[in-house]
Amino acid sequence: MHDVRAYSAVHSTSPLAPTSVARREPTPTDIEIEILYCGVCHSDLHQARNEWHNTVYPCVPGHEIVGRVKSAGPGVTRFKAGDLAAVGCMVDSCGVCPECREHLEQFCEKGATWTYNGADKHTGAQTFGGYSESIVVDENFALRVPANLDLAGVAPLLCAGITTYSPLRHWKAGPGKKVGVVGLGGLGHMAVKFASAFGAHVVLFTTSPNKKDDALRLGAHEVVLSRNPEEMAAHAGSFDFILDCVSADHDLNAYLQLLKRDGTLTLVGAPEKPLPIASFNLILGRRRLSGSPIGSIPETQEMLDFCGEHGITSDIEIIPIQKVNEAYDRLLKQDVKYRFVIDMASLKKETAA
Amino acid sequence: MHDVRAYSAVHSTSPLAPTSVARREPTPTDIEIEILYCGVCHSDLHQARNEWHNTVYPCVPGHEIVGRVKSAGPGVTRFKAGDLAAVGCMVDSCGVCPECREHLEQFCEKGATWTYNGADKHTGAQTFGGYSESIVVDENFALRVPANLDLAGVAPLLCAGITTYSPLRHWKAGPGKKVGVVGLGGLGHMAVKFASAFGAHVVLFTTSPNKKDDALRLGAHEVVLSRNPEEMAAHAGSFDFILDCVSADHDLNAYLQLLKRDGTLTLVGAPEKPLPIASFNLILGRRRLSGSPIGSIPETQEMLDFCGEHGITSDIEIIPIQKVNEAYDRLLKQDVKYRFVIDMASLKKETAA
Repeated sequence: MHDVRAYSAVHSTSPLAPTSVARREPTPTDIEIEILYCGVCHSDLHQARNEWHNTVYPCVPGHEIVGRVKSAGPGVTRFKAGDLAAVGCMVDSCGVCPECREHLEQFCEKGATWTYNGADKHTGAQTFGGYSESIVVDENFALRVPANLDLAGVAPLLCAGITTYSPLRHWKAGPGKKVGVVGLGGLGHMAVKFASAFGAHVVLFTTSPNKKDDALRLGAHEVVLSRNPEEMAAHAGSFDFILDCVSADHDLNAYLQLLKRDGTLTLVGAPEKPLPIASFNLILGRRRLSGSPIGSIPETQEMLDFCGEHGITSDIEIIPIQKVNEAYDRLLKQDVKYRFVIDMASLKKETAA
Repeated sequence: MHDVRAYSAVHSTSPLAPTSVARREPTPTDIEIEILYCGVCHSDLHQARNEWHNTVYPCVPGHEIVGRVKSAGPGVTRFKAGDLAAVGCMVDSCGVCPECREHLEQFCEKGATWTYNGADKHTGAQTFGGYSESIVVDENFALRVPANLDLAGVAPLLCAGITTYSPLRHWKAGPGKKVGVVGLGGLGHMAVKFASAFGAHVVLFTTSPNKKDDALRLGAHEVVLSRNPEEMAAHAGSFDFILDCVSADHDLNAYLQLLKRDGTLTLVGAPEKPLPIASFNLILGRRRLSGSPIGSIPETQEMLDFCGEHGITSDIEIIPIQKVNEAYDRLLKQDVKYRFVIDMASLKKETAA
């Protein structure tokens, strides 16, 4: 084990602060990545503040990690020192269950090892995320990064990107399909970019009139103010697919009614309270309500390659790690367009606590 | 128009009582059916008592209709006098919308004409259901009845049968699939018969220990007492498909957790209150919650033909129409195995009010 500088929360109400955490000694198939950028995901805040009631402290969040390979073990075949590399929400999985054998590691029957607040399969110790100077990861859970993209804007692709790319692909958003995206935040703005790049007709739903121009700039063909019943009713029964990217409580029934027969509404935001669903909204149009977590490692690579080909990155605001607590506060006020990304060079100025 | 004897409710709290109602004069493509048997569906009770807040009185319920053709118009090609014929939940639809052109009349964009409490497309008058001596219907909305089946047991196939057959086919219940059925009532007992006939491994969920033997007799391979958390937990993450046939309030989350990755829970029962769904139960396994109404006319014919080939009918208790109010009371106490069917010969003893 070796110590690296990081930012951690030590209990649910403490701000993130400088610390040092131990990384495992690299195995022969591990790479060690110097972290250049790490996105700030709403999950980071949930975990740091124990809002999912399972946080082990100290907690080092961060699972939108982009960096450069410092060293590669002798068994590593896909990376060498100096290569760009990325890490998303998972750093390991059992590798032998039916889900892992199908390369759907996100559904590993034993549970994938999450990038933070997980249990390292090699050491049993807590995993620590990307708010740190480096990370050690098996090459099979590291992603190649297209060289033509802005590295800071790539970081959010590792969670916000794949979380929206995966269901849009799974439910076949593309030419001839009318696709809705609910909410223009970190996830929603990526969903608009992807659905538009896939060739779908994209309608963005928002409660904020002042997001309209941005939505159109990002690729939406129409913008609907979801608090306007007339605007909503004009789209009744017309959508093939709607991706709901909102974590706050909101009424899904209003969106179910906008689906065509056999249409699907998929949740990627996870509201805390149970969602009241009127059964008739599902029965009458044989409609579907589904959910989707992150994507698999192969699909994450596919997504990064697609982004490279189409010049897609996240719209971001770069912050030094010293401003991460302020960023959390602004996140709660939805005051970000559309993702904070930490420039990890700022961590080098810190002295470990 | 000509009058026929029937039983109707005249307001939401009145018992059903003898009356007469007008049937349209048959068009050239209509058949007139002497009704021999009519099943008692829970929808009949909902409609008679205005529980859906849209009942027009007088209301003659009944949409599980089996009878014999009395007369066929000159344009009728598929029926002649003396043939068996059946009518389900629909008696007409617009015929020209994309759904109708796909022969998915149940999703007609203008709304199918329901067998009762609908608006007759020819006369504009209220439609009246099968608690009556005869019905006039376009041959395209009449079904052929296999000659080898018990006629009384066929009647419930027209609603309970197709309502369960359709989603089991849509979601491909069959060999190699583990299929759950929630609730052993009118719909559930048909779902068990169909899923078993399709070759699936069938698990029946019930709150009633005394239904276990019946479920196994009807074709279930396993029975789970849904109030027993250990029994439920033993099936976690194992189902390809679950058909929920329960109209009473119950917790769907317990069943969502039993689905495999990409598994589907489909509602055919329609609980009155909104159903609280925990988003994580959908997101973590990329699971789906859906609904399904009745099937199309072609699928209803396919179902009846399948029943003829496999000797499938509903388990029923035959009643005279004079006991229909008592039957409603027993229905509310779940005191029926598994469907009341009215022997319409009993109506001939009545004098219209």
